[in-house]
Amino acid sequence: MERFELYQQLNVDLGKSSCPIYFGSKLLHDFELIQSCISSKQVLIVTNNVVSDLYLHLLQNAFSSLQCDAIILKDGEEFKNQQSLNLIYEKLIQKNHHRDTTIIALGGGVIGDIAGFAASTYQRGVNLVHIPTTLMSQVDSSVGGKTAINHIMGKNLIGSFYQPNAVIIDFSLLNTLPVREFRSGLGEIIKYALLYGKDYLLLLQNYLNSNGACEEQLLHELILNSCRIKSSIVALDEKEKGQRALLNLGHTFAHALETYTQYKKFLHGEAVAIGLYCASILSYRLGFAEKSIVKIVEDLLQKAKLPSKIYSYINIEEIYALFFHDKKVENNELRFVLMKDVGNCFVYSGVSKKQLLDALVQAYEN
Amino acid sequence: MERFELYQQLNVDLGKSSCPIYFGSKLLHDFELIQSCISSKQVLIVTNNVVSDLYLHLLQNAFSSLQCDAIILKDGEEFKNQQSLNLIYEKLIQKNHHRDTTIIALGGGVIGDIAGFAASTYQRGVNLVHIPTTLMSQVDSSVGGKTAINHIMGKNLIGSFYQPNAVIIDFSLLNTLPVREFRSGLGEIIKYALLYGKDYLLLLQNYLNSNGACEEQLLHELILNSCRIKSSIVALDEKEKGQRALLNLGHTFAHALETYTQYKKFLHGEAVAIGLYCASILSYRLGFAEKSIVKIVEDLLQKAKLPSKIYSYINIEEIYALFFHDKKVENNELRFVLMKDVGNCFVYSGVSKKQLLDALVQAYEN
Repeated sequence: MERFELYQQLNVDLGKSSCPIYFGSKLLHDFELIQSCISSKQVLIVTNNVVSDLYLHLLQNAFSSLQCDAIILKDGEEFKNQQSLNLIYEKLIQKNHHRDTTIIALGGGVIGDIAGFAASTYQRGVNLVHIPTTLMSQVDSSVGGKTAINHIMGKNLIGSFYQPNAVIIDFSLLNTLPVREFRSGLGEIIKYALLYGKDYLLLLQNYLNSNGACEEQLLHELILNSCRIKSSIVALDEKEKGQRALLNLGHTFAHALETYTQYKKFLHGEAVAIGLYCASILSYRLGFAEKSIVKIVEDLLQKAKLPSKIYSYINIEEIYALFFHDKKVENNELRFVLMKDVGNCFVYSGVSKKQLLDALVQAYEN
Repeated sequence: MERFELYQQLNVDLGKSSCPIYFGSKLLHDFELIQSCISSKQVLIVTNNVVSDLYLHLLQNAFSSLQCDAIILKDGEEFKNQQSLNLIYEKLIQKNHHRDTTIIALGGGVIGDIAGFAASTYQRGVNLVHIPTTLMSQVDSSVGGKTAINHIMGKNLIGSFYQPNAVIIDFSLLNTLPVREFRSGLGEIIKYALLYGKDYLLLLQNYLNSNGACEEQLLHELILNSCRIKSSIVALDEKEKGQRALLNLGHTFAHALETYTQYKKFLHGEAVAIGLYCASILSYRLGFAEKSIVKIVEDLLQKAKLPSKIYSYINIEEIYALFFHDKKVENNELRFVLMKDVGNCFVYSGVSKKQLLDALVQAYEN
């Protein structure tokens, strides 16, 4: 096969190992590149029923000389659970996949998380390659080695840190992404802009204001730079003992909302959007940030056509209880990522229940 | 609390981290030692219904100043499964255990494996302390960081490498061990003797021939030395990329037997005993070892009152099929640990189906 297009490469440096991330257009047609990421004679492609119709056949063609199996899960966050995980295990065992096999996650964040967890636990760990097909997974979830499934009582409560062998980010795949999924990815991009500020924020604002030719190029730069930011943090703090926790800006709120709605109501980035809005209000009300921070967050979310307000049917006390299943809780104290300003966030554990509920009340829709 | 008895300490050196193993009698009464292994304000003790009657209350007393929860699983290899794992997760979530909690495995290999797997996957990994209560777990499974649950289609197929923060080996706990469980542990000790030969083999032979006063001292030395051997191998090859595979001597056969009987018929060490006998026959029939190796293995197993022959009701073709779910399979080739002599084992992948079945036929009971 000919090499279709040049690509950019970034490496996540993890001491003993290093994970290359390839960026470019039409990479899924670049069989030479894809094959170079696989060292095994067996692969299992994990995907969902939406992505499989579009891209599974193409990817399978890249592995015509190997044992190539596929498992197609149902699309949606509510299927990132133990039942889907068991389907992957059963396929691996039925098809006699060995410890040297490779699992390929072809899909968005849900597929990446569950396939990654399967890879980290099947036979105590097999090879893993991510081919993220959504904006959400291209800017965030495919990089950094977090894997998980949801539990009915809490988002991502079961999981592991497990680095992929490679990540292949094909921008062209975004062309078939439904608009709601696309906007969900913007939620995570806005998070990066709030965390890192100036250059990245400017890039995002240019993108949100752009029309026409530059738009695609700006989007690719946003993807590349979010991966660059995340890679550098993960290289310093792979297991989230310190500053990696900042990447959870908005996520304590988001996870509670997702759990509350049994993973059926929100795309992850939509819940993150509301979470960012809540974090900005809390940051302002606690006196850490100017009131303008709330407006900045609101404007970005609005331009990205994402929600910001908590829906009125959501019970505030139940949300509060769910916060205690958040992974950042330490010694039974809630810890939130708060903002002093755009580009200046920190982890804070001194929020009282009253302060928190008052802030949440303000974030509710009328 | 006063310190009851001096103990010996061994460290498993794993580069970035190091896991201390404490050996001694009545260590479960040494609250100071036990507390020193815990840095969290929450602990969950995972144990089974047999061990809990004997020791749970004592261990809970050591944690009277902490949030101390317990989950009691049913005793037996057939409960090392997804359902039991879910019970642990649910308890952790219900009791709001956070990422800084500690799981304590109080039990044998089954409890250690499943509690270890829970620790490695709850909130992407929490602290873990092993307090092995059986000979099997004191000589082998509590050291080295292998965790797992069984799948109906194969033993230990789901799991991880996850090192404990500490291992507390209290020899006194063996006083309450049922004789069948005790002999099961001897199966793993015989494996170490066959792998490492002279000194360790001599110690084992002295033990098996001893009566009276020395017996206990010799047993403690066997435990200490098996942990020493295993620690040094794990330090060199934590993830079983190379020589750690030798520790699987007899285990390909054993795991197939355990899976075949749905984990209900054999204690692990009993299956390993038969597996060692099969490995000796295969080693001899392939011309790697003298015929005397079979007799040596048979004698050791007989003295330890362990089985050696494959039970006649076991279908040989089904066992053969199960071999392909073994984790040592590479590129669809079976790999067995074989013996050239006592103390001289190696991994071999050139066994044909006929050679294997012929060897198995010879290992069947009349």
